[in-house]
Amino acid sequence: MQGFEAYHHQKKIIADLEAAINLLQWDQEVNNIKGSLARRASQLGTLSAIKQHKLINETYPLVQKLCDAPNLSTFEQKNIEQDLKDLKKITRLSVEFAAQLAEACSWAQSVWEEAKKESNFKIFEEPLEKLLNLKRQEAEYYGYDTEPYDALLDIYEPGAQAKQIAELFSSLIPPIKDLLSHIQKKTKPAEDILINQIFPKEKQWALGIDTLKHLGFNFEKGHVGVSSHPFSIAISMEDVRITTRIDENNLHLMLYSTIHECGHALYEQGLPPEYYGLPVAQACSLSIHESQSRLWENNIGRSLAFCEFLFPQLVAYFPDALQNYTAYHFYQSVNRVEPSLIRILADELTYHLHIALRFELERSLINGQLKVKELPEAWNQLIKEYLGLEVPNDAQGVLQDIHWSLGSFGYFPTYSLGSLYAAQFYNTLQKQIPNLQEDIKQGKFESIHQWLQENIYSKGRLYTSEEICQAATGEKLNPQHFIDYLKNKLETIY
Amino acid sequence: MQGFEAYHHQKKIIADLEAAINLLQWDQEVNNIKGSLARRASQLGTLSAIKQHKLINETYPLVQKLCDAPNLSTFEQKNIEQDLKDLKKITRLSVEFAAQLAEACSWAQSVWEEAKKESNFKIFEEPLEKLLNLKRQEAEYYGYDTEPYDALLDIYEPGAQAKQIAELFSSLIPPIKDLLSHIQKKTKPAEDILINQIFPKEKQWALGIDTLKHLGFNFEKGHVGVSSHPFSIAISMEDVRITTRIDENNLHLMLYSTIHECGHALYEQGLPPEYYGLPVAQACSLSIHESQSRLWENNIGRSLAFCEFLFPQLVAYFPDALQNYTAYHFYQSVNRVEPSLIRILADELTYHLHIALRFELERSLINGQLKVKELPEAWNQLIKEYLGLEVPNDAQGVLQDIHWSLGSFGYFPTYSLGSLYAAQFYNTLQKQIPNLQEDIKQGKFESIHQWLQENIYSKGRLYTSEEICQAATGEKLNPQHFIDYLKNKLETIY
Repeated sequence: MQGFEAYHHQKKIIADLEAAINLLQWDQEVNNIKGSLARRASQLGTLSAIKQHKLINETYPLVQKLCDAPNLSTFEQKNIEQDLKDLKKITRLSVEFAAQLAEACSWAQSVWEEAKKESNFKIFEEPLEKLLNLKRQEAEYYGYDTEPYDALLDIYEPGAQAKQIAELFSSLIPPIKDLLSHIQKKTKPAEDILINQIFPKEKQWALGIDTLKHLGFNFEKGHVGVSSHPFSIAISMEDVRITTRIDENNLHLMLYSTIHECGHALYEQGLPPEYYGLPVAQACSLSIHESQSRLWENNIGRSLAFCEFLFPQLVAYFPDALQNYTAYHFYQSVNRVEPSLIRILADELTYHLHIALRFELERSLINGQLKVKELPEAWNQLIKEYLGLEVPNDAQGVLQDIHWSLGSFGYFPTYSLGSLYAAQFYNTLQKQIPNLQEDIKQGKFESIHQWLQENIYSKGRLYTSEEICQAATGEKLNPQHFIDYLKNKLETIY
Repeated sequence: MQGFEAYHHQKKIIADLEAAINLLQWDQEVNNIKGSLARRASQLGTLSAIKQHKLINETYPLVQKLCDAPNLSTFEQKNIEQDLKDLKKITRLSVEFAAQLAEACSWAQSVWEEAKKESNFKIFEEPLEKLLNLKRQEAEYYGYDTEPYDALLDIYEPGAQAKQIAELFSSLIPPIKDLLSHIQKKTKPAEDILINQIFPKEKQWALGIDTLKHLGFNFEKGHVGVSSHPFSIAISMEDVRITTRIDENNLHLMLYSTIHECGHALYEQGLPPEYYGLPVAQACSLSIHESQSRLWENNIGRSLAFCEFLFPQLVAYFPDALQNYTAYHFYQSVNRVEPSLIRILADELTYHLHIALRFELERSLINGQLKVKELPEAWNQLIKEYLGLEVPNDAQGVLQDIHWSLGSFGYFPTYSLGSLYAAQFYNTLQKQIPNLQEDIKQGKFESIHQWLQENIYSKGRLYTSEEICQAATGEKLNPQHFIDYLKNKLETIY
């Protein structure tokens, strides 16, 4: 083997190692064998080190050699260029620095757990400080044009820049606040009919499976399990796993987290198997990934058409709890808007205020304008400013998310970008699919699948998020689509 | 790191790779994602190749260098010697030959499946012939003193020789046949009360979990699942997995396969975690592994004391099916003896006639005294001679087991060795634990666990099966213990 074939062979080996790593992680979450946590960490460490060693010592030289080769097709070139970019980045960090960082994260994470339990930010200060210093150092290793934060953002959203994210939020926050204050003046819809009643676990599970079948999740190439925090992970495009969470008093949680994870899974199942291991067979970015989960969860899943499709099935499963309600009650329930303290419980509108404040704070932390000890106060002020709420304690405030303790600075913005892309894709879907609402109402999703396959899944990671967006929708990312979408929906409901 | 520490570090890496391989295999059996079978095979192939490459290029030189080092303790020396022996064996096969063998096995296995389905040995002849040629070649690569079969036997039972196995069976078959003909003259006990009634699956599952708890399976360091063929596999000594099989009309199957797998699992969970990766933290051999499953399944699990302990719980779970029976009916049911065609359904006594004939046949095949096309006829003759049965077709005859299609010649004898070791260990347990039967009757297994920990688990793979047996029981393997054990039990029942 030589040339592109040898490179693809090498990338398959890397993908096989990643598959084993992902299975070890999936298994840890789902089967959760407490006595083997330390051992599992060492197993994961070994496989990651083997992968890293192969990337640096085998893949990188191969790619460097190949990228000057004549007679490569454009397709081949694009794959190789993408890998070359990644490999350059990977080799910027020394093995020692990577180990230092991993250790600091591990320490920060365990202290964060304790700090959150005790609602005591004070004890988290030292490990966070240490982690921030290392992350700033990491940013220096990677390099950046404008500010250190950009180098970290690029890990999760290749090519994105803080300045541009800040502009996005500037154009997003005022209309969100306007819409929120408009809503707050109106009468609230009735309570969420999917909570505070009994929804037996086994029936919820069966409904979840039914819903996944309707949405097109391929059970021959996937698996559904249960974990305390729902997630999705791909062992390969032929083996994509999601988990769901079932609470007997809350059908909302199971239903919409299942639809959300299904959106992620459909993306992974849609990647081209013949190119397993290559950039074209990998998801584009976190933001495009999130656009897929949110498109299904929110734009489709919380539409009136979808509620009308699903509600009769809900009633069939839970007649006692739901027979006195209509599909419109269901629609109102899943579109309630109300400022709250906790990001993961936030509604579609106020969610982005949570992200905006995290972005501001982490950018200031990394760039050195905000000190660690000033963080809780800054957090609480922004919650007051954006959401009008008082933070009663750190656990429900600055300590609520795991991300910073994992060193994931630059991750949060991808959540908002995901919603923005989703709304823009949905807008295009509405224009290009003649009877979209009617199709959804009848549970027919083939045309949506086809559009996503063509415009998103088949592109893999050969294009940036922006390029995919431009090609699929005819314009670059435009937050107005998100605002219009929510305005149309919420002004009818309220 | 250097010296023994560096070697242990290297062996941990190998163990981590094996852990990932075992998890990929476990997952394939248990979660069985049909669309990813080919991909999973390639993932397993990649990890195995990485492991093999490391063993040959990193571990072997390290071990070779270390074995001449001064100042090694006896314990350190024993571990290193064991590895040196294994590594010498591994390096005898070229990468090309190993690939050829793997391919031939893969072909033979798929043809075997078809041949079994169609009950047509003819189509299996060619791949079996090819496989036998390669296995004979493999035997030559490994080398042997007396006959080629010895070299293959050594893969599964280090140090064992065909001549000695043949002698064991010579001393075993006549008393087994005597006992069988004695039993066949007597009145049969009533039908098995654990079959042909309805035992709801969920209750069987709950009973299985209860039973595992009683026997000491550590759920903090293990996991129980469901698969079509029950098995056990260790991801590490802190993560040992077993599966069970549940058939609504057959409680016997679930109960005794669970106890059997639990015996395997207790062994793995009992290996010393501080030596993870080293021979002392690995199971001794297949025969000693099987002795552990059979000790719990048969010697303990089918004893009157155990039946008296478990029966009240069975009645509590299945009152409709069992309330009209006694513990003695249960005891009789699980000790029924009746010649049958299928090995995996055979009773404790006639099981070894199945193994004896397989041993004779595979030894003759490998050594070249029996031709492939003569195999079905030879099989049917021996079934007639040993069990007095006519074989109606190849599916229920020579094609019933998967082993030969996997190239596993030399594996079968370890099943019988396991039973013989188990009986001998049980005999010693009875002598050394004063109130053994009373303890079992009360569900107290601590003294048994302690004895096994001391005499089996803690020894790892630093000694041969024979050495472990000698140290634990004061004599070398003596099949008379097995005969006496069965004679005592069966003559009371019949």
